[in-house]
Amino acid sequence: MSLQIKHLLGLKDVSREDITAILDSADHFAEVLNRDIKTVPTLRGKTVVNFFYENSTRTRISFEMAEKRLSASPLNFSTSGSSVSKGETLRDTIQNIEAMKIDMVVVRHGSAGVPKFLTECTDATIINAGDGYHEHPTQALLDMMTIRQRLGKLEGLKVAIVGDILHSRVARSNAWGMKTMGMDVTLCAPTTLLPQHTESLGVKVTTKLNDAISDADVVMLLRPQLERQTHGLFPSVREYRTYYGIDRDKMNLMRDDALIMHPGPINRGVELESEVADCERSVILDQVTNGVATRMAVLYLLGGGEQ
Amino acid sequence: MSLQIKHLLGLKDVSREDITAILDSADHFAEVLNRDIKTVPTLRGKTVVNFFYENSTRTRISFEMAEKRLSASPLNFSTSGSSVSKGETLRDTIQNIEAMKIDMVVVRHGSAGVPKFLTECTDATIINAGDGYHEHPTQALLDMMTIRQRLGKLEGLKVAIVGDILHSRVARSNAWGMKTMGMDVTLCAPTTLLPQHTESLGVKVTTKLNDAISDADVVMLLRPQLERQTHGLFPSVREYRTYYGIDRDKMNLMRDDALIMHPGPINRGVELESEVADCERSVILDQVTNGVATRMAVLYLLGGGEQ
Amino acid sequence: MSLQIKHLLGLKDVSREDITAILDSADHFAEVLNRDIKTVPTLRGKTVVNFFYENSTRTRISFEMAEKRLSASPLNFSTSGSSVSKGETLRDTIQNIEAMKIDMVVVRHGSAGVPKFLTECTDATIINAGDGYHEHPTQALLDMMTIRQRLGKLEGLKVAIVGDILHSRVARSNAWGMKTMGMDVTLCAPTTLLPQHTESLGVKVTTKLNDAISDADVVMLLRPQLERQTHGLFPSVREYRTYYGIDRDKMNLMRDDALIMHPGPINRGVELESEVADCERSVILDQVTNGVATRMAVLYLLGGGEQ
Repeated sequence: MSLQIKHLLGLKDVSREDITAILDSADHFAEVLNRDIKTVPTLRGKTVVNFFYENSTRTRISFEMAEKRLSASPLNFSTSGSSVSKGETLRDTIQNIEAMKIDMVVVRHGSAGVPKFLTECTDATIINAGDGYHEHPTQALLDMMTIRQRLGKLEGLKVAIVGDILHSRVARSNAWGMKTMGMDVTLCAPTTLLPQHTESLGVKVTTKLNDAISDADVVMLLRPQLERQTHGLFPSVREYRTYYGIDRDKMNLMRDDALIMHPGPINRGVELESEVADCERSVILDQVTNGVATRMAVLYLLGGGEQ
Repeated sequence: MSLQIKHLLGLKDVSREDITAILDSADHFAEVLNRDIKTVPTLRGKTVVNFFYENSTRTRISFEMAEKRLSASPLNFSTSGSSVSKGETLRDTIQNIEAMKIDMVVVRHGSAGVPKFLTECTDATIINAGDGYHEHPTQALLDMMTIRQRLGKLEGLKVAIVGDILHSRVARSNAWGMKTMGMDVTLCAPTTLLPQHTESLGVKVTTKLNDAISDADVVMLLRPQLERQTHGLFPSVREYRTYYGIDRDKMNLMRDDALIMHPGPINRGVELESEVADCERSVILDQVTNGVATRMAVLYLLGGGEQ
Repeated sequence: MSLQIKHLLGLKDVSREDITAILDSADHFAEVLNRDIKTVPTLRGKTVVNFFYENSTRTRISFEMAEKRLSASPLNFSTSGSSVSKGETLRDTIQNIEAMKIDMVVVRHGSAGVPKFLTECTDATIINAGDGYHEHPTQALLDMMTIRQRLGKLEGLKVAIVGDILHSRVARSNAWGMKTMGMDVTLCAPTTLLPQHTESLGVKVTTKLNDAISDADVVMLLRPQLERQTHGLFPSVREYRTYYGIDRDKMNLMRDDALIMHPGPINRGVELESEVADCERSVILDQVTNGVATRMAVLYLLGGGEQ
């Protein structure tokens, strides 16, 4: 089995067949992760470089765990202590790393487009672990895996994504992927935190929380980056919480069976009260568990390993 | 074989049977470490997260080496570059890590009680690698292993622990563990570096070095943290060295067969002169070697691996 | 097969037989690296500590990759977060690490002589990964491997090394090693960037680029460390580039078949224009690839592994 794509740069141009193949494979790996021995020999002898130019805990650890459970050999590379500070170009850095005969690169970078650029200067398989405000495709895949796991399907489901849409690569990847899978996506944020040309994403947009969540099957919260507030993008944390934060009362406006999701890390008491984050309709920790399975699936399918 | 404890949070409430089982297992692993191939498949496929919120060299490397020699898959997590700086709660961080299906967590943290707190919010096995001024149980276990290795027993032996007792989790863990094993413990320090309620530890306390060391089977030195001096806890490094530092003359006040111990790192020329640190009665490097074996034993016994 | 040397501290006193054995073994490992499965079990169960006191990307990753491909178990140790900052001596640090039963130490340090010092206080095998302005022997070995791979021999070949010779451990290791292998070495730099007692190296020295490169089989560029310029060692980057940087015109002064080499990272537009760095006569990425093979050979031959 192999995918149409050779790299995972984003979900914008990934077909429904490829997304389905990844989700099916992730379901398989989720079973492996419930075994006592969670390691499979799939990528033994393959070298994967984790190239993280931005700080990250959960994504880096999730990828590293996925790599180790596939028996790949991960090498971690971060900016501090690197020749980047000696003025080397990104192209030279990646070509040097590739010249050491690596197989795959997982890259996170503050600038949109870096993963695509890397495909143009190396032969290694590139997986985007988040690039600027552009895409974060494995996050959207694990979100869809989690929804399908709980609700049995994706097609026709209504999803509300609430929060700082403007700066969110998670929202963007989910919008593309969910549209492809036939889902009905509504983005909800104050006007200052909405992107301008949302029509190109093919989704609905609203500034009114109630409109977004009242008939949604899934409500996904995004954390407002609090440093935005000092840039005037929202008036105060208290006001954000009042209008867009989900507490028990707002949850009561949703359908009884709506799922609560969040890509983490959560600001408890801002976009999500603890009574909601920890309730039984929250699948936030399932998302984390499924993250490892999803990344195993992506590494496996792009790495050409035998299952 | 399994222990009564499910986590290693400290030695305060660990039974003599459990301590003996760990020391016996550590002796076994010490033999493994003398082989040419030092790796055993005991924990193959298990994931251990090293969660170090405080800087550490020897403890982190010792645990990582122990994990690798048991064929576990270690993941290192440190505060810098983590979502801790994004305001995530400790509970959320650990629950996220646990959701990735890890088996064990080795944790070092500047606040006493963090390891215990973690047992309340995750199902993973927790091993305390040092929490604030509270406990550092694997250090005390390796100290006892080293004494038993050299002197053939623990019961009835006299131990003097000299130095900054007030701020030492090593002293505290040793006091609890050694009392349980029937040893006779004396803590020795200037008044300002002694804790206030030492009677609860069930040990003798003195400010006079000679009283502590003259009939001890084991003299364990602790490093005074030099930054304490600027807080007025001792008058000067020179004065500390004069009254509590061990040189050849002070060593001559000890019994001829007394062991010299130190958990490291040593301030040479402060609490210990090189002529003492490097003499044949010093077992300081044995402690380091035994640290790996002790940690292998703890990981093995708590990890439920097959030997 | 084993070497006359027990450690790799530098190339100054390494025999032609030992260098040849390392290069032959590296050629073998280069073939392994072209296989789909690049891992061999040679050093399974051996622990190698990467002890990097200076920032490094490519050298650390290259060593770590070499260690993993030999199935050794690498442990990374860097200064930040280490007990070095607590005032521990280097001798104590290394003896502590050695007491954990490690087999080999790869060390990079800002001070010349540290690798040699380590051989005096531990029994572990020491490999120098760069010490101050002294030596960087694995770099010189990979350079010679690359030349031999392309030109079929070393004996009698003419090499020009151009750039900041004064501060270059790469130049020094290459000068020693290449002399031993019967090569004809010319060092070329402005007077302020040349060492004073070059006669001891047994090489030619010139300040005129044309004299150095016109009949060379190999032209190796070194990056001028731009911070030197502020110390008055060269007048300006523009002047350095004019007189010592290689562009298409300067390349036309060389022989048609001369190889272009650089240990990286490159300052494009200073010592090397992109049109030269990326031309077909440039073997810069081959050097990187060969670095992993060379380090595998050194680790294998000094580690006493079975091939």
